[in-house]
Amino acid sequence: MRLRNNPHAYDELVQTNLLITQYQDHYFTNNNPIHLEIGCGKGDFIVGMALLYPEINFIAVEKYATVLEKAAKKIKKAKLNNVLILNVDALELNEYFSSNSLDTIYINFSDPWPKARHASRRLTNKKFLTIYQDLLKDDGLLKQKTDNVSLFESSLLSYHEYPVEFVFLSLDLHKNKDITNNVMSEYEQKFSKLGQPIFSAWTRFTKEGE
Amino acid sequence: MRLRNNPHAYDELVQTNLLITQYQDHYFTNNNPIHLEIGCGKGDFIVGMALLYPEINFIAVEKYATVLEKAAKKIKKAKLNNVLILNVDALELNEYFSSNSLDTIYINFSDPWPKARHASRRLTNKKFLTIYQDLLKDDGLLKQKTDNVSLFESSLLSYHEYPVEFVFLSLDLHKNKDITNNVMSEYEQKFSKLGQPIFSAWTRFTKEGE
Repeated sequence: MRLRNNPHAYDELVQTNLLITQYQDHYFTNNNPIHLEIGCGKGDFIVGMALLYPEINFIAVEKYATVLEKAAKKIKKAKLNNVLILNVDALELNEYFSSNSLDTIYINFSDPWPKARHASRRLTNKKFLTIYQDLLKDDGLLKQKTDNVSLFESSLLSYHEYPVEFVFLSLDLHKNKDITNNVMSEYEQKFSKLGQPIFSAWTRFTKEGE
Repeated sequence: MRLRNNPHAYDELVQTNLLITQYQDHYFTNNNPIHLEIGCGKGDFIVGMALLYPEINFIAVEKYATVLEKAAKKIKKAKLNNVLILNVDALELNEYFSSNSLDTIYINFSDPWPKARHASRRLTNKKFLTIYQDLLKDDGLLKQKTDNVSLFESSLLSYHEYPVEFVFLSLDLHKNKDITNNVMSEYEQKFSKLGQPIFSAWTRFTKEGE
């Protein structure tokens, strides 16, 4: 996500009235399920999902304010009232959400961090799975999509070593006939056009090993 | 593996003196490790491996005599003394091998059995994993290669539900820089030329859950 840094981005986020700035018991005025996207980028996925599922509340998490500001503009333009935004690193999520409070977490085309010494930064590293397991409800789902071979190999190994069950697994998502309403992120549109297979896993954390 | 049925194939296999026809404590005159390929097809993989690793004993298993006869010819032609052949279904392997007797089992480009009602015929189905776990030594490896997306998805789910650890996992084997001496089966040569990614998993059975 290469964008020129916008030093005013954070102030602009505050002005949108979409930004979560501190912990609250309730972020929305209804009790609809809450779906979180970690690394929302410019927001194509979250906007598409929020339009398709008005009965779900979405929160777009993105650590780069300059990038999140692009997503915020799209959310505003689409006049969505079921999306909020959060400008933090995934490691800080537990400062904003209680245990067992989220229904779904999406990780779409996250940074593959290809070097072995950066493996712990991959969003499916054990360190992050521990956070997701805490935040997700018992029947909550972690839904990952990526085109990156090394990242998905590493993610599968990470899932295998963690107490999860696979609810869905695809090594070529766009050729899967069972898929409907697949909302694409900017990256998914780009890589799919290049003919690259899209990998996807939906996992549910199990109690085993706790 | 489409070949016109050869009604004399089995007799020809017997005449090669390569064919295992009944259980023996030792099939080879040395105590070298034993590697088994299930579904050897026309034998390119096993012949390539046997030439590359003379210090390993190989056994090529193939349930179709007509197909195995093609492999036998290649083994004879290569004058290999570290390869034997076995004309049985994988379900019968425990009639020919003791528990904890094999070092490696290879499954290369096995029949994907795409229909859900045939799932139990896939060579990575739980039914077969149970057999492999029994036959393999404690540190033995199951090494799978395939180009088939659905089969590999199904295999990964099967491995995940079984007590195994992944020793190696690749979603694009031919782009993996760590791979050397990758001997290709007939199918691998064909599908690789078509630009299809080759999937591979090496798993080791663990004691957990026994």
